Amino acid sequence: MSIMRIGIVGISGYGGSELLRLCVSHPGFELAYAGGESTAGQTLEQRFPALAGHPSGGIVIQPFEPEALRGIELLFASLPTGKSRAPLARVPPGIKVLDVGGDHRFAEGWVYGLTELPGQREKLKGAARVANPGCYPAAALLALAPLVRDGLVEPEGIVIDAKSGVTGTGRGGASEFGYSETNEDLFAYGLAAHPHVPEMREALSRLAGRPASVAFTPHLVPMTRGILATCYARPRGKPDAAQLAESARRCYRGEPFVKVLDVAQGRGPHTKWATGSNLAFLSYAVNAETGLVVALGAIDNLGKGAAAQAVQNANLMTGQPETAGLSGLPLWP
Amino acid sequence: MSIMRIGIVGISGYGGSELLRLCVSHPGFELAYAGGESTAGQTLEQRFPALAGHPSGGIVIQPFEPEALRGIELLFASLPTGKSRAPLARVPPGIKVLDVGGDHRFAEGWVYGLTELPGQREKLKGAARVANPGCYPAAALLALAPLVRDGLVEPEGIVIDAKSGVTGTGRGGASEFGYSETNEDLFAYGLAAHPHVPEMREALSRLAGRPASVAFTPHLVPMTRGILATCYARPRGKPDAAQLAESARRCYRGEPFVKVLDVAQGRGPHTKWATGSNLAFLSYAVNAETGLVVALGAIDNLGKGAAAQAVQNANLMTGQPETAGLSGLPLWP
Amino acid sequence: MSIMRIGIVGISGYGGSELLRLCVSHPGFELAYAGGESTAGQTLEQRFPALAGHPSGGIVIQPFEPEALRGIELLFASLPTGKSRAPLARVPPGIKVLDVGGDHRFAEGWVYGLTELPGQREKLKGAARVANPGCYPAAALLALAPLVRDGLVEPEGIVIDAKSGVTGTGRGGASEFGYSETNEDLFAYGLAAHPHVPEMREALSRLAGRPASVAFTPHLVPMTRGILATCYARPRGKPDAAQLAESARRCYRGEPFVKVLDVAQGRGPHTKWATGSNLAFLSYAVNAETGLVVALGAIDNLGKGAAAQAVQNANLMTGQPETAGLSGLPLWP
Amino acid sequence: MSIMRIGIVGISGYGGSELLRLCVSHPGFELAYAGGESTAGQTLEQRFPALAGHPSGGIVIQPFEPEALRGIELLFASLPTGKSRAPLARVPPGIKVLDVGGDHRFAEGWVYGLTELPGQREKLKGAARVANPGCYPAAALLALAPLVRDGLVEPEGIVIDAKSGVTGTGRGGASEFGYSETNEDLFAYGLAAHPHVPEMREALSRLAGRPASVAFTPHLVPMTRGILATCYARPRGKPDAAQLAESARRCYRGEPFVKVLDVAQGRGPHTKWATGSNLAFLSYAVNAETGLVVALGAIDNLGKGAAAQAVQNANLMTGQPETAGLSGLPLWP
Repeated sequence: MSIMRIGIVGISGYGGSELLRLCVSHPGFELAYAGGESTAGQTLEQRFPALAGHPSGGIVIQPFEPEALRGIELLFASLPTGKSRAPLARVPPGIKVLDVGGDHRFAEGWVYGLTELPGQREKLKGAARVANPGCYPAAALLALAPLVRDGLVEPEGIVIDAKSGVTGTGRGGASEFGYSETNEDLFAYGLAAHPHVPEMREALSRLAGRPASVAFTPHLVPMTRGILATCYARPRGKPDAAQLAESARRCYRGEPFVKVLDVAQGRGPHTKWATGSNLAFLSYAVNAETGLVVALGAIDNLGKGAAAQAVQNANLMTGQPETAGLSGLPLWP
Repeated sequence: MSIMRIGIVGISGYGGSELLRLCVSHPGFELAYAGGESTAGQTLEQRFPALAGHPSGGIVIQPFEPEALRGIELLFASLPTGKSRAPLARVPPGIKVLDVGGDHRFAEGWVYGLTELPGQREKLKGAARVANPGCYPAAALLALAPLVRDGLVEPEGIVIDAKSGVTGTGRGGASEFGYSETNEDLFAYGLAAHPHVPEMREALSRLAGRPASVAFTPHLVPMTRGILATCYARPRGKPDAAQLAESARRCYRGEPFVKVLDVAQGRGPHTKWATGSNLAFLSYAVNAETGLVVALGAIDNLGKGAAAQAVQNANLMTGQPETAGLSGLPLWP
Repeated sequence: MSIMRIGIVGISGYGGSELLRLCVSHPGFELAYAGGESTAGQTLEQRFPALAGHPSGGIVIQPFEPEALRGIELLFASLPTGKSRAPLARVPPGIKVLDVGGDHRFAEGWVYGLTELPGQREKLKGAARVANPGCYPAAALLALAPLVRDGLVEPEGIVIDAKSGVTGTGRGGASEFGYSETNEDLFAYGLAAHPHVPEMREALSRLAGRPASVAFTPHLVPMTRGILATCYARPRGKPDAAQLAESARRCYRGEPFVKVLDVAQGRGPHTKWATGSNLAFLSYAVNAETGLVVALGAIDNLGKGAAAQAVQNANLMTGQPETAGLSGLPLWP
Repeated sequence: MSIMRIGIVGISGYGGSELLRLCVSHPGFELAYAGGESTAGQTLEQRFPALAGHPSGGIVIQPFEPEALRGIELLFASLPTGKSRAPLARVPPGIKVLDVGGDHRFAEGWVYGLTELPGQREKLKGAARVANPGCYPAAALLALAPLVRDGLVEPEGIVIDAKSGVTGTGRGGASEFGYSETNEDLFAYGLAAHPHVPEMREALSRLAGRPASVAFTPHLVPMTRGILATCYARPRGKPDAAQLAESARRCYRGEPFVKVLDVAQGRGPHTKWATGSNLAFLSYAVNAETGLVVALGAIDNLGKGAAAQAVQNANLMTGQPETAGLSGLPLWP
């Protein structure tokens, strides 16, 4: 396997840090550029003490400039929503770009990068511009996609009640989410609108072949990582839990990163099962009293919800083995 | 105000401990009996170091025996579900009983003790047997009751996605919910069935005047206290958020413990706002994309969800001022 | 008991918020002024949702101006270290001042307000200017004072290894101590110098009658509240643990807020035993291998380490019963 | 590199789980045996959902029996202290044994496995029986060893104030350390005696060439992983912080897993810097007031304090590259 030179911009954010962790251990990547604003001028080992003495430790974090990308084959961009459009437009066309942020999802010229979504993988192979999915959509869509595609649930009026760890707010949110206020607290936000809604609606509508609609409520949970999406959909016909799980198992057959729980265990997935990995855990139930279908998806918001998903896509974009650099087990406990 | 002698059985559990905290500071109560099994034989100050030197500190925790209740006017029972029916049947009729546990809700001869539920307060005054609401129903019903009563939402097919801190599992659950596994984890449970469902269905059906049905999914969140119920209901007509909040504000006018958030703030309640108190915070929204009504209720599961609600009821049962012993502000942060 | 009008400046900080909680429930206080900078212009109920509908809820937070203090008898100041000297110099002499911050400890004209420190209480009665102790000194000095005074340990070379919850950094620290970085992390800081050292040295020297010296290392622990000071001192003679505890018990005889653990239990105090209260828990041991004396003190840094200690002092300054407003039990769990 | 078949007994504990995580990703190991009592009969993928579909996922956990070890070259044992002596005596001599537990430290015929301790590495190469260090000693000894060896501090009367995350109590401790009691709590334990003391005394005495003595106080901190040892020692002569750090840097020159912080930064290491890795971070200071030397060591108690250290030793025992399977960066945040 030839070694590919990659760059990361936004390296001081949470997503960028996780990309750094994954790329530094990736057998086919060599980190050649680290971009950041708030930490510009620091070396990586000043910012990340674990890199002291590491071959990449001496790299100096630089503000974004296209000139700095010389020799890079692929750039990971992990910038706040609304902040990646301008800089990424300046990336030379010969450099592939994986945007972890929210500015290019379902945008012209960009492939949507939820790899396991039916039909996406082929588009990602060799792609030059890929937009990673949002963290909430990654969890919800993986759980819902098989059911919507197989016509087991109605695509309209799906309730997506999602819960995220605090890294989901980004490092820029740290000042708003100080430890003492955030610890031992739980709340819903974005009741009026959330930027992830159009992405979920679009993806579900394509799978259904007709307009989908979702009521999405995100919550902040006092933990660092993890997203659980609890989705409620009206059934078409009377599928039982085993049929729902079977639909998912069929959809994700052979997928190394998606695990469908055995319905017989009667339990939902734990976010902690995925910490630090690219894994997604799905489970299915039918609510006895209302007949509503309940689909659950659990991921690490920085893993399948951001950096690990990005590495998986980058592997496909550049011809690396799809699982390269992603085989580590989750950290537990 | 005359001083009333009260007893608490189940004092070594979380609910019992919180009852102890509230009763010891209650201006109209005198703790005269402490019952417990796992800690029987200990004095209260051995079990609760803060009681060292306190007038109640020397009380010895005893296994439950009706004889030990002599001189008691009211007994709080905070026993695990399924464990209170037999012992409470042996309480002499002259002693009033407040069952915090789940065995007597909507049972013959017991008044259901969600005080602010329309119509309940009058039944609670002077009652001899009161069954406290479950912690999840307390949060969900306070949020939903006005809307269901006023016919603003359909009572069928209501989704109640609820999240609880770990004390909700009871102290008996501590062995199953060790710190290291539970910290930084989040999951749904009770997907098949949960003992709180019939209670919610019954209460909502009575308010609606026709059968209600709920899809209830409880989740465990890594925090000690707090419940947030996020409820989704289909609207009748096209109420906007202000009308929903107005319905709640009308329903809870003059209630000292229920706070309806201003819709204009566009945010949901935080569980931390209620920690250690009898308060409930409610907010309302209409989901833009689906039209679904979103009603949120946040409480302390050991407060409005258990012990503080129990004290409020006991005050009504015995003619004390309803807010006696409950005026402390929540602990923050 | 006549009602006394009090003010709080710094009300949007953690210490100020806890003062608010305690003062609003205090039977002898009426909150008449709330001062703050970052939240100026908000009403208290906007800042603290639990105050919605409360008599104090409508008070508007104002920037500090001496004119606003008209009619106040006592002002609590809970401002960041270095920020209280100038404003408090402008408080009219007829208004008593309790400075929770660090600018007036052992300063000319100010009484040092660790109430239970031998000899302090009498000086606090009726005092016009009182400087509250630092949170770390409150925990360490309560544990060490009896031993130093009784000559059971050498006052030189005492090691004070202290651990604090995150509110100890103040609300201004929230941006530096975001949830995701702070959670699941532990570290020592202030290795070179810490503003609490002179205060501890001074207090211990006075008790010893000769110069004391301390090696103080503070640590930040991922919890909201609580301080544990683990102190190591060289013995004079060969005191055993029982003698050490006896010294403390004698020193704090009749003190309602200081609890000395029974040596026979062989365990140290838990910070959680004190959450939300003015309590301090002390325990003593002799290290078998080195003969060093180990003295432990656990408090709530916002309780005995700040706001509750301040209320105790204010009670003494104004002739209220010393325990007024402080009898609530800690929140547990 | 030839693949070596290894076994793990105690796989359902925290140390065993972390061994599993590391061994499954180790390029030179093949997991061939998984032993456990409480989970016997389960497959690994039932116990660890992330292993669903993994080549090792189908391995059935078995109670310990020497017969089951056939074909194994090395056995990791991660059993509670006091429980490994009997079973490990039955392991056939041809199978190498790495005991993560506490029963064989400084025992006859066992090499002490703190790899970076001066002089240890050579003894570990090819060894048949290795006893891993305790988690507290790993943190404290790495920090103190250079200073004691170089005669910069006195070996008598060293204070080791250590703080551990909750996994340090072992999974068997989960019932005692339930989430709700442990969260937001901090306390010292083992004041009378702790099994790690003889190990630290022995190692330090050997380095000093004369008897060492330590006052060791362990504390439990509400976090899952991490140990910080804050050590206070009397200086010999007047070393400054730079000299102390230089001693450590010289001692650990070329060590891939030990990082000595730059004194000029004036800060101590964070436990979170090591999460999930074999890294140890050290820093040094001289207390200005007392002249005491302060040496700090931070590790992941399940990493350098248990499983990762064990893998490093196993690599040496079997001729694998010493860093094989250990190059992953810590998880952050």
